[in-house]
Amino acid sequence: MNIILASSSPRRQELMSLMGWSFAVEPSRITEDHVKNETPRDMVCRLAEAKAYDVFSRNIGAWVVGADTVVSLHGEVFGKPSCNDDALKMLMKLQGKSHDVVTGVALFSPKGEKLIAAESTVVTFRGMSSDELAAYVSAGESSDKAGAYAIQGKGSLLVEKICGCYSNVVGLPLQLLSRMFSELGWPLSAQWRK
Amino acid sequence: MNIILASSSPRRQELMSLMGWSFAVEPSRITEDHVKNETPRDMVCRLAEAKAYDVFSRNIGAWVVGADTVVSLHGEVFGKPSCNDDALKMLMKLQGKSHDVVTGVALFSPKGEKLIAAESTVVTFRGMSSDELAAYVSAGESSDKAGAYAIQGKGSLLVEKICGCYSNVVGLPLQLLSRMFSELGWPLSAQWRK
Repeated sequence: MNIILASSSPRRQELMSLMGWSFAVEPSRITEDHVKNETPRDMVCRLAEAKAYDVFSRNIGAWVVGADTVVSLHGEVFGKPSCNDDALKMLMKLQGKSHDVVTGVALFSPKGEKLIAAESTVVTFRGMSSDELAAYVSAGESSDKAGAYAIQGKGSLLVEKICGCYSNVVGLPLQLLSRMFSELGWPLSAQWRK
Repeated sequence: MNIILASSSPRRQELMSLMGWSFAVEPSRITEDHVKNETPRDMVCRLAEAKAYDVFSRNIGAWVVGADTVVSLHGEVFGKPSCNDDALKMLMKLQGKSHDVVTGVALFSPKGEKLIAAESTVVTFRGMSSDELAAYVSAGESSDKAGAYAIQGKGSLLVEKICGCYSNVVGLPLQLLSRMFSELGWPLSAQWRK
């Protein structure tokens, strides 16, 4: 298996590693632009495909995985915060409410077949004060994370509950990716082989 | 903060470490016995308290955390499998269905105050064949896990979705524990302090 992960995200790399899959990392050169009136789902699918295609075009014959994740609350899309103040503003909007984490995944097979799909998980935050959230932001985990939190770190204390796929909230829905691999010829049993 | 985790589970130790909390580990000498007609919730609360009390009685003046986790399907309780065949039997029962993961948590404060609570998360497995599940068991992750799977490892591919607290499924519901710490005098903001 010659798999390339078209992402610089250390979380995505860690999730792929947990599966025991061997893979290389080659981040795409795609800019994460926003198109007016595009739904979160359409946006992450478009960006996942662009990232995967960019890397596939330089690596014909490999499996290539691209992904893009956003946080969405009542139609408002949250990407990565620009600074600690921005992070605190995002978290103040998210606290005490449920939001969607949406990840688009694009998979190219060695033969050039292509699959694109999205996974959505509902995340419910507990109610918290601005002082409590400021303490979380000060812990230094917010930067570089869509929605300004890391559920796999200290941010787990922000979360009341989730409904859906957990790894999707970290940044790569492993079960969806596994199904896509199966559909293009790499069966589940083989994915578990040591 | 002088915290002792009364558990030998590497997963619980890892979850506590993720929070940035410093703690010592001292497993209890309690046997995980089953009492006839006891509900899963009553059982994990009883065992969590017994584990925490056993360690607290030798460490007066410390915070002590005890926990016990089981998997429950339609009233049947699944502990750790005795062998690979047992693991495969458990997974065959769980596949294609939703089960509950229930963890009891007991917390003793330095002053000897005590809190006991349980967290429950619904986990839905995808439908899988015995060959697929045998491949998962062969990957070597089943032993020493309640229900014969590890959601934080290759077992994430077994799981269609969860509803509730994720860390509870790994073995220690961090958000519940955090609330218990707050209730006994260690506030959330301080828990996040670097």
